[in-house]
Amino acid sequence: MHSLHPLFHPSSVALIGASSDPERIGGRPLRFMIEGGFEAPIYPVNKSGDTIQGLRSYRSVSEIDHPVDQAVICVPVPGVEAAVRDSIAKGVRAIQIMTAGFAEIDADGRALQAHIAQLCHQAGVRLLGPNSLGLLNVHTRFFSTFSTALNGLKPQPGVIALATQSGAFGSATYGMASLRGLGFSKIVATGNEADVDVAECIDYLAEDPQTKIICAALESCRDGERLRQALRKAARAGKPVLIMKVGRTEAGAAAASTHTGSLAGNDVVYDTIFAECGAWRPQSIEEMLDIAYAFCVQPALPVNADIGVVTGSGGIGVLMADEAGERGLTLPALPPAGREAALALLPFAVASNPLDMTAQVTSVPQGVSRSVATMLEHTAWGTVFAYLAHVGLSPARFATTQAELIAVARAHPQRRLVLVMLSTPEVNRALQAEGVAVFEDPSRAVRAMAALATLTRRRESLDPPQSARDAQGGGNARLDLAGVETEDGAKRVLAAAGLPVPPEHLCTSADACAEAATAIGFPVVAKIVSPDITHKTEVGGVLLDLQDAQAVRAAYDELMQRARQLRPQARLEGVLIAPMLRGGVEVILGVHRDPTFGPMVMYGSGGTAVELFQDVAFASAPLSSERARELLERVRSTRLLRGWRGAPACDEAALVSALCRLSEFAAAHADRIESVDINPLVVRAQGAACLDAVITLQGGASHAH
Amino acid sequence: MHSLHPLFHPSSVALIGASSDPERIGGRPLRFMIEGGFEAPIYPVNKSGDTIQGLRSYRSVSEIDHPVDQAVICVPVPGVEAAVRDSIAKGVRAIQIMTAGFAEIDADGRALQAHIAQLCHQAGVRLLGPNSLGLLNVHTRFFSTFSTALNGLKPQPGVIALATQSGAFGSATYGMASLRGLGFSKIVATGNEADVDVAECIDYLAEDPQTKIICAALESCRDGERLRQALRKAARAGKPVLIMKVGRTEAGAAAASTHTGSLAGNDVVYDTIFAECGAWRPQSIEEMLDIAYAFCVQPALPVNADIGVVTGSGGIGVLMADEAGERGLTLPALPPAGREAALALLPFAVASNPLDMTAQVTSVPQGVSRSVATMLEHTAWGTVFAYLAHVGLSPARFATTQAELIAVARAHPQRRLVLVMLSTPEVNRALQAEGVAVFEDPSRAVRAMAALATLTRRRESLDPPQSARDAQGGGNARLDLAGVETEDGAKRVLAAAGLPVPPEHLCTSADACAEAATAIGFPVVAKIVSPDITHKTEVGGVLLDLQDAQAVRAAYDELMQRARQLRPQARLEGVLIAPMLRGGVEVILGVHRDPTFGPMVMYGSGGTAVELFQDVAFASAPLSSERARELLERVRSTRLLRGWRGAPACDEAALVSALCRLSEFAAAHADRIESVDINPLVVRAQGAACLDAVITLQGGASHAH
Repeated sequence: MHSLHPLFHPSSVALIGASSDPERIGGRPLRFMIEGGFEAPIYPVNKSGDTIQGLRSYRSVSEIDHPVDQAVICVPVPGVEAAVRDSIAKGVRAIQIMTAGFAEIDADGRALQAHIAQLCHQAGVRLLGPNSLGLLNVHTRFFSTFSTALNGLKPQPGVIALATQSGAFGSATYGMASLRGLGFSKIVATGNEADVDVAECIDYLAEDPQTKIICAALESCRDGERLRQALRKAARAGKPVLIMKVGRTEAGAAAASTHTGSLAGNDVVYDTIFAECGAWRPQSIEEMLDIAYAFCVQPALPVNADIGVVTGSGGIGVLMADEAGERGLTLPALPPAGREAALALLPFAVASNPLDMTAQVTSVPQGVSRSVATMLEHTAWGTVFAYLAHVGLSPARFATTQAELIAVARAHPQRRLVLVMLSTPEVNRALQAEGVAVFEDPSRAVRAMAALATLTRRRESLDPPQSARDAQGGGNARLDLAGVETEDGAKRVLAAAGLPVPPEHLCTSADACAEAATAIGFPVVAKIVSPDITHKTEVGGVLLDLQDAQAVRAAYDELMQRARQLRPQARLEGVLIAPMLRGGVEVILGVHRDPTFGPMVMYGSGGTAVELFQDVAFASAPLSSERARELLERVRSTRLLRGWRGAPACDEAALVSALCRLSEFAAAHADRIESVDINPLVVRAQGAACLDAVITLQGGASHAH
Repeated sequence: MHSLHPLFHPSSVALIGASSDPERIGGRPLRFMIEGGFEAPIYPVNKSGDTIQGLRSYRSVSEIDHPVDQAVICVPVPGVEAAVRDSIAKGVRAIQIMTAGFAEIDADGRALQAHIAQLCHQAGVRLLGPNSLGLLNVHTRFFSTFSTALNGLKPQPGVIALATQSGAFGSATYGMASLRGLGFSKIVATGNEADVDVAECIDYLAEDPQTKIICAALESCRDGERLRQALRKAARAGKPVLIMKVGRTEAGAAAASTHTGSLAGNDVVYDTIFAECGAWRPQSIEEMLDIAYAFCVQPALPVNADIGVVTGSGGIGVLMADEAGERGLTLPALPPAGREAALALLPFAVASNPLDMTAQVTSVPQGVSRSVATMLEHTAWGTVFAYLAHVGLSPARFATTQAELIAVARAHPQRRLVLVMLSTPEVNRALQAEGVAVFEDPSRAVRAMAALATLTRRRESLDPPQSARDAQGGGNARLDLAGVETEDGAKRVLAAAGLPVPPEHLCTSADACAEAATAIGFPVVAKIVSPDITHKTEVGGVLLDLQDAQAVRAAYDELMQRARQLRPQARLEGVLIAPMLRGGVEVILGVHRDPTFGPMVMYGSGGTAVELFQDVAFASAPLSSERARELLERVRSTRLLRGWRGAPACDEAALVSALCRLSEFAAAHADRIESVDINPLVVRAQGAACLDAVITLQGGASHAH
């Protein structure tokens, strides 16, 4: 049994701080549960009074002459600790603290909250809150919340679960969903998350038989790995997770910088994690509920991202095609047999996709339903939309078509049929009961189904098989990180990790430089090496395109002299001689340790694209080669590698390999490495080469170019 | 009186093809008008029968023994021409043809339609359709349509006008609006637009006293200038135009090409025209109605794009701030006096913007209304949003706050107060009557107000004063376009138009080249000049960085020889000697003649940004310098001109001047020029220089590099 079970399924509840006033915070949960008909015993606890809202009341938990499974605490802050101690002593398995005024207020509050969490932890008691708006198990009518949203809107049982940190967010979602007639299985507001957090609730709900889809809202995340695991578990269980995380526009500002350090650790990392773990991030509450609605009607993801559109209006068809194109859905062409069948039925139809039935449909018996059936029969498209204007507002006239469409839907149980029309609630209910979703706005219908189709794809690419990583081998070895603070040291470690580093020699004399250059082959590059010189170009520390031994000798002297002059205190380790490479396309690879989610790999193009266009993408380390290839697809500049303007195509396999090796290195040294910047990696027609690299250790100094 | 007045305000109507069956196409308009109570006489015309739906019927228009002001024709195609002739003979001022089967079907239909239009034109009769779903003047109950949308939804009078080509689009919008309780002034479906088009309807509605906001939908546009003038007229009249144009994702594909020819003439030109002319392009019908709703409640644009957010929930506040940031709204900081006032009221508030009242607000009398008032009093922000969860669902509890908020709104009649909450229709109506808009979804509320704030800005930048253009002078002269098919000729014309062209000489001997180079100063560039060589680089026709006279002489011989070898048929005009310029930032300027809207100016960055990131923007020619500066702001790569990574800032004034001169040249020669490509224009620390230019004349050959 999941350890959160006692929180959602108490066999008895003590409400500590219960109020006789059904409008007060301590009175509302009691009223909601009494009115709702909670099936287990409730024991109100309050110092004053013998009965509260008609129930026998107790002066303390210890007075209760029955076992108590869960305590719900809403006394003021000063009384909370005692209430917790009493509850633990009474033998509860779970505690909810609704009282606010803890970690969200000040240091004292933080300390008291930590102390209470520690008490619970030691006793093996799970704690929700403090500062929680409460918890609902709708099927058992356990309405343990003081949210006034329940005043006007009685909870309806359904298959949507809602887990949110913010109670206000929960109330908003609950209210909007209820007005739309959507029902819930469980709702939980985790508040300050002294113990139970949203991630663990998702983990629980992934197992909950009453829950088929999970809506969630985060303000922060304490344990990135727990969240990842919970999201993947839900995805594997076939339960979409629609997870909101506010603060997305900070990303816009921060992402304007090229620095991986400031790019990662912000909002874009959440996008990445949600996508990797098979979840969807809605941009608005309404979008979340549109998707939840479409899934509730037929609790299965569309089998693919192909869609068909049947319409009686060319304009609306194009509007839907526009929206589909922007959201990753595809409208394949109707196959010839399908075209023929459509034209046999409606000779004036535009038998394409969208399939425009034209006004002719009104004079052909079963015109609408047979057009939809034709499309379903002649394709394997996951979703078919039918735009039917306002026919649903005239139930009597629509009855025949409605029955025909239901029959078509039944004949294709693996496919999604979505109607876009104005209609009455009764018509909607009848269709929904048969798995047919109904939307009023064409654009919203397409958006919701596009999100579900994206979840199909994400679920398919969840967790690439371990064998793919094993086959690459060797990436998890621990390497000696001594000396990584110089370019030379960083490159040596990266070469050992399997990254392509060109042959380079650190030389301490002009003669050694000439010898190294001769061995490498001309032309070469010479760079000053010092742990104390962070920006080589500032001291003129790089000389390019040296053509012969004489030039290389002169370069050594010149570089050492410049460095001594401009940075007299710097420790000079010598001069690095490297081949001068021409051609190829420059990209940037990086790693940044996100405080929540650990090492994140970054890939972007060289030049100005990262900074001007935020043309970068992120992925969790380590990366399978499948994920690395996906990463390439998420960056527009990757097109530059593919034979841009007649240039030869670059060696993408070498780039994918470099990304994988870098990611494995980052994962194997996650405890040591703060960041890695390979800028640039040059991808050539054959192979790739790290031209510069910077590794920063945690708490340590960095070397920069 | 506007020439469309007789179409919208007939003093009597003959319905030709009227049917006794109120469900048939010829029966519905009659039924809608009889049921609705149309105030003027209706004369049904039908060969069979004496009365139709209770009205005296006539066998032909000529039989009608009263004057007839307008004819509505819904007879089958073969009878339409006779009906039109009869109506003209009877003296109508306007004709609607609902019958379909004309230009939308085949060449015969096109010819018949043109013929009928010609008949009407000669008679001075305005024609709506054919293939029109009809026209509604809601205030006079002139419901001349066969749309079944009116079966369930009786038209409500209001201030929204709707002009659409597609009848289906009109029905969809009408239906969704009606379910939301939005009312209309006029609705018109222009169908095949043989005469009256959407643009002219907008022109009419801009004058219509019953209309305060115009919704429109286009599938195509025949007369770009008429549309521009109509949109500007509506904007100047303070009537927002929300105009949909489907087909926007074709733009995505087409815009991926750098070629101005394929970039312009497509969807992005509509975006440009709508923005220039003060209109808004919604992406969905729902978005259009959200904006219309917000404007109907208080028919004035917000005074600026600054917004304040008052909320009891931090999370919802951030959600709204996210959306605002993405839509061009700004959340300025609350000024210190405002902060103090907010904290005096609610000591625990987060007195910022968003202003989080926290749960404390529930215990402070007038907490909500005074918070909102504080924000309005201490700022000049155009719009203040208050997120109030679900309070509106409990009208009795909310009554006091509602009255207080209405008082606040009345005290600030120039400002916009928008509530985001769940509420009952009665609560909504009471607030709306006082100019307070109510939205359920926080994100949609922000999006709607962001659109209105954008319209404020567009209206302010409408039509820069003519003096700004006059002051620049000289741009409208007609130039001799002979010889523009070569680079040399194109540059000479552009130089004459005031564009910065470096000193260059077309030379026909090696000696002349050396002389020219000496005069210009070394190093120089040499390029082959031939009207028959379209891509100079393909024949090795460009030699860079020539350092002395000897090199220049050799270059002449080399270029002529290469060209003779590789293109023996080409007419060689000689070699162009130009200065070799270094430094500066390369941009692309272009002009393309859009078939609908005339010459459009394009500006983008050099390099790959245009192709990879569609980092280009368009504007109508001619451009004022204000518009040219706006154009720079719409291209991200413009940042490269502003001291990128330590480089010196470029001469933006020179770029603005070049854009203005190019646009004036394009406008003055709109009858001759097909396209101009200046690629690149180098913008330097001082001045700018066209390094290459191609001008293509209409119907003529082009020169390319």
